[in-house]
Amino acid sequence: MSPPPSQAPRLPHAPGAPVRAGIPEHGRMPKYYLAKAQLTELLDELGEGATLPAERELAERYGVARETLRLALRELLLEGRVRRQGRGTVVAGPKIEQPLALGSYTEGVRKRGHTPGRRLIGLERFAADADAASELGVERGDFVWHLERVLLVDDERVGLESTYAPVALLPRLDDDFDPVGSFYAYARDAGGLVSGGGEERIETVLATPREALLIGTPPALPMLLLHRRSWDVRGRAFERVRTLYRGDRFSFSTELRAAE
Amino acid sequence: MSPPPSQAPRLPHAPGAPVRAGIPEHGRMPKYYLAKAQLTELLDELGEGATLPAERELAERYGVARETLRLALRELLLEGRVRRQGRGTVVAGPKIEQPLALGSYTEGVRKRGHTPGRRLIGLERFAADADAASELGVERGDFVWHLERVLLVDDERVGLESTYAPVALLPRLDDDFDPVGSFYAYARDAGGLVSGGGEERIETVLATPREALLIGTPPALPMLLLHRRSWDVRGRAFERVRTLYRGDRFSFSTELRAAE
Repeated sequence: MSPPPSQAPRLPHAPGAPVRAGIPEHGRMPKYYLAKAQLTELLDELGEGATLPAERELAERYGVARETLRLALRELLLEGRVRRQGRGTVVAGPKIEQPLALGSYTEGVRKRGHTPGRRLIGLERFAADADAASELGVERGDFVWHLERVLLVDDERVGLESTYAPVALLPRLDDDFDPVGSFYAYARDAGGLVSGGGEERIETVLATPREALLIGTPPALPMLLLHRRSWDVRGRAFERVRTLYRGDRFSFSTELRAAE
Repeated sequence: MSPPPSQAPRLPHAPGAPVRAGIPEHGRMPKYYLAKAQLTELLDELGEGATLPAERELAERYGVARETLRLALRELLLEGRVRRQGRGTVVAGPKIEQPLALGSYTEGVRKRGHTPGRRLIGLERFAADADAASELGVERGDFVWHLERVLLVDDERVGLESTYAPVALLPRLDDDFDPVGSFYAYARDAGGLVSGGGEERIETVLATPREALLIGTPPALPMLLLHRRSWDVRGRAFERVRTLYRGDRFSFSTELRAAE
């Protein structure tokens, strides 16, 4: 079942890396992908923060057309291996690994040696429709807060967070909540809402034009969307969160327990 | 802090949906996005499995250029709201929600009323490099299995799974393992490896050309990549898995426990 040695992979066979580094079985490797593999090696040599040579120079070095080189660079950009800085392109650092756990945004970012932050976009109350009512355990038409904030890492925009909460549980949110502070800390101190558990769902989506604008990303960038619902120790649903993270900057981790 | 009524969202304000359905703050909505919003309504009306009218007809109906309509359809395709079927485009069903839990692939798919399956791509042994050795708790140069399989849902290709395991723990894998069967069941029965826990990391990536070919997806499709490492009840690392799932077909869920 093992292939003969001549078919053996030429590139490292590490468990974390794509097997055979993406070479299709039929043996024809797209030119842009070969350029991408060469660029990936270059990124490793240069190291985080280093500026890449000009596109023209790289296209010459790898013997490909400018258009082909751009295709390779675009994928590296979408994957977060490089990022634009001013008019240049620099080697990006590793993705920030966030634990899938309650109230973890600031903690996860700090653990990676970065400074977390938030910027308020809006806080408004609206009458719950059927979906909102069911998810937050309120009646249809009951008022619900919608708190929308941009997430920052080292002052760079990396995500967009929408928090929904029943107005009845936190009636003074618009008066005495620090809009760049922790919603959990506020819910605990002002509403006596101590987190008792929750559920989270993660998927990949494309940012809408408005979201791309607010986060400052190209619209084609794959994003990670986290849906979260939390309840307090008495079982009251007190938040429904929808957080969009730049897919080139974040990964999410969890610990698995044996089934029994 | 609430906006005046004139700025209130015109579209439903559901917690699961993008707020204001993607209308940028400056009020100019891209034409393709308006067409996409209209198409989304149409999808809800038509229902899962229904065939969409021809592109030309839709472009006329919404008063946009064919090119603009195609852009809207392309995003709906990448997001898994529609899928190609023969020469037509049909309304897709909801994403399959997979629990982030040990050995959950077949179980998660069955829960959604689908039939899971696997197809063998290859099984080979190779000498561990530094990364593989460290992740699998073996010495550099020790032999490691690499089992590569395509994941199926109702006979459709939806993912690509690479499982790495120390040959020393499962020396007869190439002889008596059913390559479309459960690796966990085999590891337990043949190697006495009872799962004791693990860790998982999820990120979004673009498929490589080889991966896109094996899964049969367009290369630009955002994929969800799951990294998993598991150990048995005695703490022996016995697998490192790298699974690529179509981002338009899967989401992943987890339960959250309170911190204390």
